Parts: sequence; structure tokens; C-alpha cells
Amino acid sequence: MVMPYTQEDIDQWAECMARCYRMAGIEEGKTIQITPSFGLFNGGFGFYHGARKAGLFVIPTGAGNTPRQIRLLNDFQVYALMGVVSYGVRIMEVLEEERGELPYLKVAMFGAETFSDAMKEKLQNGLGIEVFDIYGLTETGGVGTTGMDCPFHCGIHIWEDQYIVEVIDPDTGQVLDDGEKGEIVFTSLTRKALPVIRFRTGDISRVLSRDRCECGRTHLRIEPITGRTDDMIIVKGVNFYPRQVEEALLSIPGVRNHYQIIIEDVNGIKDVHINVEADRGVTGFMVEKRLKEVLGFSPKGDVFSPGTLPRHEGKEVRVIRKDREEE
Amino acid sequence: MVMPYTQEDIDQWAECMARCYRMAGIEEGKTIQITPSFGLFNGGFGFYHGARKAGLFVIPTGAGNTPRQIRLLNDFQVYALMGVVSYGVRIMEVLEEERGELPYLKVAMFGAETFSDAMKEKLQNGLGIEVFDIYGLTETGGVGTTGMDCPFHCGIHIWEDQYIVEVIDPDTGQVLDDGEKGEIVFTSLTRKALPVIRFRTGDISRVLSRDRCECGRTHLRIEPITGRTDDMIIVKGVNFYPRQVEEALLSIPGVRNHYQIIIEDVNGIKDVHINVEADRGVTGFMVEKRLKEVLGFSPKGDVFSPGTLPRHEGKEVRVIRKDREEE
Repeated sequence: MVMPYTQEDIDQWAECMARCYRMAGIEEGKTIQITPSFGLFNGGFGFYHGARKAGLFVIPTGAGNTPRQIRLLNDFQVYALMGVVSYGVRIMEVLEEERGELPYLKVAMFGAETFSDAMKEKLQNGLGIEVFDIYGLTETGGVGTTGMDCPFHCGIHIWEDQYIVEVIDPDTGQVLDDGEKGEIVFTSLTRKALPVIRFRTGDISRVLSRDRCECGRTHLRIEPITGRTDDMIIVKGVNFYPRQVEEALLSIPGVRNHYQIIIEDVNGIKDVHINVEADRGVTGFMVEKRLKEVLGFSPKGDVFSPGTLPRHEGKEVRVIRKDREEE
Repeated sequence: MVMPYTQEDIDQWAECMARCYRMAGIEEGKTIQITPSFGLFNGGFGFYHGARKAGLFVIPTGAGNTPRQIRLLNDFQVYALMGVVSYGVRIMEVLEEERGELPYLKVAMFGAETFSDAMKEKLQNGLGIEVFDIYGLTETGGVGTTGMDCPFHCGIHIWEDQYIVEVIDPDTGQVLDDGEKGEIVFTSLTRKALPVIRFRTGDISRVLSRDRCECGRTHLRIEPITGRTDDMIIVKGVNFYPRQVEEALLSIPGVRNHYQIIIEDVNGIKDVHINVEADRGVTGFMVEKRLKEVLGFSPKGDVFSPGTLPRHEGKEVRVIRKDREEE
């Protein structure tokens, strides 16, 4: 999808993000590292514009090269780290391999992927920091536009002066009572180029409280997002549907009809592996290139000879989900 | 090197870039595509801030995925393309392979790498556009800060209200007369966080004219940069010195002392290939990973068994330059 912005929309985004920074205790003059690149994935822009509004010192590293990211975190004595959840996990892994430390880092704001409490705990311990769960959808304007948890970590505060939030029954569309689980729906009050009215997010949550929070804020709180109403898959901050993978695969000459999308979910962080049957001459490189064009990232995967992937009776099992919880 | 910016510095950069856009005839409301990612390479930021100052509609694509870049250029009827020179070449190649067309694209601003008149001509014909040669160094604040050629293409106008420009003899430091070739030196008049005083760029050029240009501008004009005083190599917008390659290679356990840096220069656009001798167990992946960490991009290259790279008498020939002109 295409998300257009007017100057006012960028200002509104910056305002929402600046609130998130302050809510995480990141005061003026503090140093932050922004790990998403600024390109077609819009996350980097939100972190950046908000940081300028909040008067922060920005190290804009872009994605990748984790050992260098760690070096920069320490060289610039970075106070807060911004990124997608799975990149936080990657930094933690490299830190363990290198037996490194991040003595200056105190806070991270992770978003764009759902993550379990277990994963949050693991990241907090592994990186030695406080982790905030930032929320926002491209359709509402991007990262941080809808809200974040406060230092009391008792749910996601929603910016009710910017968006009306409702929880509905995904089947009937009926608005549900507070406390009942359903689909989150947003109506934007202040966006110009592409305002949304009762936008169905596909995210499952519930209203936890409309009372004043211990932090003093009166914006209502919802449960952190951990489920979806549809088969949308979110990997490394990128959304896609299994049918997009199918269309991409079948557009490659020589690729056959049998394929597997294996989604491994470790405490809410997803990794995807795509296996496909194809005629001789179809290489993994060709498949990866096409999938990268369509999905925006390179999944792992293998090419199999026709007839060698397992068959199932009845409905073809094409999306295989492997969920596990790590300690 | 680290380049810090205050808010005023970003405004100054935006002002310089906005002038470049207007000089290229890119009026308010026109659509531009920015191909550098916004990360540690700062080019994307300059194009972006200038575009907002100039009131342009920005498609921020980031680097890579050239077929998608071409699709976006056409889908959004993009008027002007921004990037490093070698990425312009890449787009031209893919366009030829795909027998594609860019009917809406009229202008490109390419920078960060020197390019010959022959290459400029080739890009203009291959892409069917007018090409501008944008100039600016990280040390002066980034792309576009020092100047660009105007629609009369009679040299690079230097923003003399922002920078003092001098041409010196690189050996003696003496200021040269107009018309004499030497090293370009800049003094910034308006930068705050890191002003430079008589910064030696290493770029070779000469003052062409201080007269009022046919375009009406009175900023002096220098010859486009095509040479350097030192052994600095610029590939894909990234600067490095051969000694950095040597240090990176020798930091890998098992790598031996013999290596080759082969720089192929086609009409001013450089490609680099690094060969190295190493013990069994050192893989191309290990070498590439280390070089990418140090250089910021992955050069091509091969790993050879000890004793198999060619030896030379006397001074070791480690940097091999292959220049050729293509029609």
C-alpha cells in the first residue's frame, strides 16, 4: 500500500513519536540509535521526525551490520535503541557471541512485530534495559502514531486525542464492552492526506482500563497486541499474506505447485522458511530474488525436485506454523 | 568520520539542496525519487531535507531492487531521480535488459562519484533525461552543499555565500590563479556543529569563470571533478583508502600478506575486486563480511591459496587500475 503524507501529517507523526520518547523517559539531548533504514519501510522516518521534535541526538544507522551497530551504541554512549523487535533479538544474539556489553544503553523502543511477555523479558535481561512496546500502523500514519506503554507497563496507552479506538467483534462488527477481546479499529482525527474511518487493523486486543494510570496519563490502555484476525504474517516488520508468496512463486517459470511456508514463532518473533518444488534449472537465487521483490525481504528457503516435498491428504498444508517458547 | 549536525546545519543543507532542485528546474509539487537509503551514508538526508524545503513530493525508495525502482518511477510518474552516479548506471542497465522505458522521467541529479563527460552523455541518452552533476562533501555538510551545474552545463556553480572556495597547489599550498588546475579547498561560512577552515578536499579542479553565467547566477564556476590528489578510491558513493583494505584483510586470522585491489574504471565509474591469499579454512564469506564491516559495502573478490597470486619485482603492485572508455 501507498501512504501519502502532507507536511501536517509529518508534524502529527513527529508529535506522537515525541510523546513516546518522553513517555520512555528519553529527555532532550539524549542520544538514540535508529536502526530501520529510511526507505519504503516507513519506520525510520517516524523515529527520526519524532526525535527532532523531542530534541534528541540521532545516530541513524540503518539496518544490518550488527557488530558495527553494537560498536556505535558504545562509541556514542547511546541511551536508547529504536527498531523492530526481531532486530533487538539479533543484537542480543551478536552481543552474546561477542561476549559484548552495552553499559550505556538504558531503553529500547521496539515495534512493528508482536512479541510475547516472555520475549520482552528475555530482551530486557539480555540487553540489560527497559523495553517499551511501541504501536502504530502504516495506515494510521506509522510507528508510534497510536501509542505505547508507559513506565508502569500496564498496557498500551492510545493517543485518544488523535485517534478514536474501538474493539469490535470481527465477525459481526458489533462494538464490544471493555475487557472483551476483539479486533482493534481506528478512526483518525488529525490526519490529512489519508485519514482513516473505522479502519480494521486485524489486530486482536481488548481495553484494559479507561482510568487514570499511575503515570498520570488518562489515555485509555489496551492489552499489547499478540494475535491477528487473519492469516497475515509479520516478519522483520514486513507484513504479507501467504497468497502473495504463492503468486510470487508461481510467476517463476519452472516452479511447480507444491510449496511450504514454514513459520517458526519463538515467543512471538517470527522467522519464515519457504520450500518449493521446481524443474531443474530453477535456482534458489532465482526464487529468493523474486520473493525479495514481492515481499521486500529475503526469506530462507530451498528448491526441491518435483515430487519430493511431503504430500498431505485433503486440504494441502502449505503454511506450517511452529510455535515454541524459549526460556 | 563523524559529521554532526545542529538544527541550523540541517536547515542550511536543506537551503543548499533546495537551490539545486530549483536550478535543475524541479518546481514545487514535482515528484522526485530518492534512491540512497537514509543511514550512515548521509546522501539521502540531504536530498530529503532539501526536497521538503523546496515543496517536492518525495518517493523515498532507498537502495537496491532496481526493477522495483523502475516500476515506482513509472507508477508515480516521477519527474526527477536522485542518487549516486553508479546507481544511475545500474538503472540504465536494468532498463536495457527489460527493454523498459521511463517516459515521465526528465531529470537526474547524480553525485558522490566523479564521472566523465562520456559517462554523462551515455546516462543522458540511455535514460532519456538531463543529468546534473551535484557536488558536496560530507565534511562541508553533504550532498549539494557546495554546488551543482546549471541548465547551461558550463561548470559547477559554487555557493559562494555559504563557502569560500580556493584552488591551491597541493604540494606548496599556494593559491593558484583562475584557470590553473589544483586542489579544491573549502571554508564554510554558515555551518555550526563542525565548520571547516581551508578544508583540503583532495579533489582536482580549476576555476572556469567568475563572470555572470547565462543562467543569471553570479556564483563562480569550477570544472567538474574528475581527479584526486591522493589514492582515495570512491566506489558506489563510499570513500576508502587502500590501506583500510589492507588493515581489514590482515585482521582476519589465516589471511596472508599478498593481496590485490583491482579497480576497474569505466568512464569514471569505479568497480573494485579484491583478491587475497589465505590459509585453508578462510572463506570468501569471511573476507567479504570483514570488508563490508570496514568499507560499508561488499566488494567482489576471491580467496587464493598461499603462493598463487602473481608476484612482482621491487615494489609490490597491490592496487591495479584498469581504466577504459566505453562508447
